[in-house]
Amino acid sequence: MDFMTGVKKADTLELGELLDKALIGQSVKVNGAIHTIRHMGDVAFVILRKRDGLLQCVYEEGTAGFELKDLKEAAAIEAEGVLEEEERAPGGIEIRMTGVKILSQPSAPMPLAISKWKLNTSLDAKLNMRSISLRNVRERAKFKLQEGIVRGFREFLYSEGFTEIHTPKIGAKSAEGGANLFKLDYFHRPAVLQQSPQLYKQMMVGVFDRVFETAPVFRAEKHNTKRHLNEYTSLDFEMGYIDGFEDIMAMETGFLQYAMRLLGKEYAKELEILNITLPKTERIPAVRFDRAKELASEKYNRKIRNPFDLEPEEEALIGQYFKEEYGADFVFVTHYPSKKRPFYAMDDPEDPRFTLSFDLLYHGLEITTGGQRIHDYQTLVDKIAAKGMEEEGLEQYLNTFRYGMPPHGGLGIGLERLTMKLTGEDNVRETTLYPRDLSRLEP
Amino acid sequence: MDFMTGVKKADTLELGELLDKALIGQSVKVNGAIHTIRHMGDVAFVILRKRDGLLQCVYEEGTAGFELKDLKEAAAIEAEGVLEEEERAPGGIEIRMTGVKILSQPSAPMPLAISKWKLNTSLDAKLNMRSISLRNVRERAKFKLQEGIVRGFREFLYSEGFTEIHTPKIGAKSAEGGANLFKLDYFHRPAVLQQSPQLYKQMMVGVFDRVFETAPVFRAEKHNTKRHLNEYTSLDFEMGYIDGFEDIMAMETGFLQYAMRLLGKEYAKELEILNITLPKTERIPAVRFDRAKELASEKYNRKIRNPFDLEPEEEALIGQYFKEEYGADFVFVTHYPSKKRPFYAMDDPEDPRFTLSFDLLYHGLEITTGGQRIHDYQTLVDKIAAKGMEEEGLEQYLNTFRYGMPPHGGLGIGLERLTMKLTGEDNVRETTLYPRDLSRLEP
Repeated sequence: MDFMTGVKKADTLELGELLDKALIGQSVKVNGAIHTIRHMGDVAFVILRKRDGLLQCVYEEGTAGFELKDLKEAAAIEAEGVLEEEERAPGGIEIRMTGVKILSQPSAPMPLAISKWKLNTSLDAKLNMRSISLRNVRERAKFKLQEGIVRGFREFLYSEGFTEIHTPKIGAKSAEGGANLFKLDYFHRPAVLQQSPQLYKQMMVGVFDRVFETAPVFRAEKHNTKRHLNEYTSLDFEMGYIDGFEDIMAMETGFLQYAMRLLGKEYAKELEILNITLPKTERIPAVRFDRAKELASEKYNRKIRNPFDLEPEEEALIGQYFKEEYGADFVFVTHYPSKKRPFYAMDDPEDPRFTLSFDLLYHGLEITTGGQRIHDYQTLVDKIAAKGMEEEGLEQYLNTFRYGMPPHGGLGIGLERLTMKLTGEDNVRETTLYPRDLSRLEP
Repeated sequence: MDFMTGVKKADTLELGELLDKALIGQSVKVNGAIHTIRHMGDVAFVILRKRDGLLQCVYEEGTAGFELKDLKEAAAIEAEGVLEEEERAPGGIEIRMTGVKILSQPSAPMPLAISKWKLNTSLDAKLNMRSISLRNVRERAKFKLQEGIVRGFREFLYSEGFTEIHTPKIGAKSAEGGANLFKLDYFHRPAVLQQSPQLYKQMMVGVFDRVFETAPVFRAEKHNTKRHLNEYTSLDFEMGYIDGFEDIMAMETGFLQYAMRLLGKEYAKELEILNITLPKTERIPAVRFDRAKELASEKYNRKIRNPFDLEPEEEALIGQYFKEEYGADFVFVTHYPSKKRPFYAMDDPEDPRFTLSFDLLYHGLEITTGGQRIHDYQTLVDKIAAKGMEEEGLEQYLNTFRYGMPPHGGLGIGLERLTMKLTGEDNVRETTLYPRDLSRLEP
């Protein structure tokens, strides 16, 4: 009988391990994909692409023990050789090859010059060859940073006593009601894809006090802009026993501070590759919706067309205002008009035309919507009626409040948008692995 | 201008903080939901439910400064009082109340006796009142353990150099092809919900070498069993540069070892509440499919009806066999028949009727399917043809192999099933927050 006992140390080394000075001059084994081959006469540089970076292997006729023509770009190989210091090579090391084992051969030459520093390819072409274009080191780095953001979100919230939940994406009804829902047939019953975990996470506040979820959400919106996706990853949290919606903004600020520190520490390589300066998160200004509109209008001479709506151009100007006046990368815009918020948003008791809610703008783009929610059963029932909605399908949600719920609130963060702004991209598709939009459903 | 600077220390204390001996005899503030009130004559015990456990507050007429009748079960309150040691109370502490602030009142008496140790309620009733039934401390603990499993999965894989990815759930075509797909209308184009991130994670192996995803998958299977869900959370990973499919089993063993250690360390309270003994993960037996069938058949006198299929009853007997003979909680069953595996599975070169693949059984239930995948372009194209499938819709997937892919493999773990077996439940709905099955689409 065979037994599995866990992960064994491989005899091939990773980049981090090769930086061990004691290995210099020793024979080592590494694996990787041939990123590119640079012919320099008698010598050739075989650049291996590994998960944590590039590694220079040197081929010299005679000592290598094989023919250079056996090596093809995009092949997966296991190389053997002597580790040497070489300050001109990536990471300051190189391997003088003494042998090679071909693990896998490509069937055709690469269609993209992925080994170039910048991939000079249109977004469409990149997306049409996503699994190839991401082999470019810079393209790949964006998604490593995206990982760091999600990781920071979870680690920070665990440390703050949140519980992770997994809520269903198929349902009979959706949170916000109304249009913009993808419809499907669920064993001959009409069903929809959830546009947010809103109602579920609220229900779970009565159980765990603080919950979060990192999962896909689905919006059948017919927007065709650089900011919209029809499926995206939402970082959601909801927390009970709050004193006000400011507690939600404080928690988000804490997350951003934690995540940026994590990126600085564990993703420094990717930040360097993309030449990114981390945004400032120590002091994030918070300004009322109506005041924000005035400030932008006054400074940039732009007439306020609708006092109850915020146009994308106004968001951009508000971002610009706070960058110029306060050096701020982020700004919380608070007290959104009730008309523009869903039924569960808590109205401001001092002026019910506005809500105890906020958006977070990052360089003028909305990346978060959040706020305090109604927690009193009768208030919620009345609000649903006032909005002209039906209680049908909301029974279990409403019962949650009937049987007691603490004051609470929460938010949703668009992961791809946050990554887009962090990496300085101007199209959210650049930071989406496989975007879904009006025209793109494949691959 | 207001500025958000991060999370401020609340003036209310959490359970962990109350265990600080220096606070004994001090006045403290806590918040929570009134889990139950036990009247004992002049004194009453007001049990608060907090996110990390129960807390006993003592009401005494005269010193409390308010009327006991002001307190209702299920209300959210902020209590003030003096912290005292009391070994008969949960956690060995109690609070002698000196004041209370009602944060929120329920509108109706509780429909379930959630404060009982075991909730004597049918599964259907529990699911119909999910947000209430989970307020029971034992019911809630199962999902806290589920969090620990997912957290262990991610933490372990990060430490092994994996990158987290987010792949689309809506697509034009699906991984395995064939039936069992939920269909939807995507802006007047036919689309499906992904039944697995299989093709995406394979494509990303060419980019990151090692990837994982923890996300929902959708199966339109008309099974109505205790083991099946139509939407569940899949813990998926895929890794390149493997020497064989044994590397995948070794990685899964490492994950299980890590996760069980994490549960033992950070989720000890929940393990105790549910009286769970962690399963053994140090040595997991691996047995060939055909041999496993023989062993179970011989020992339990059960005729092998189909040598190329494994019935649920046979799985259970194989689990029983390895528990009895080796004391094993888990067993890897390897070399599944090619007919039963999808096109991307790598056939065993020594006998192509079988594949280099495996299932992991936990107490006789399949919780994982995994194996080595085909990485050679031509082999993959030939296999697709041999299976009678079309290449249409697989172009980008196939191109990934055309332009080089390392030897690789991976697996998918059903989170709810793993939690079910860990907690000793016999229905997967017990460990699913909001199950989706043939009859259940709400809430």
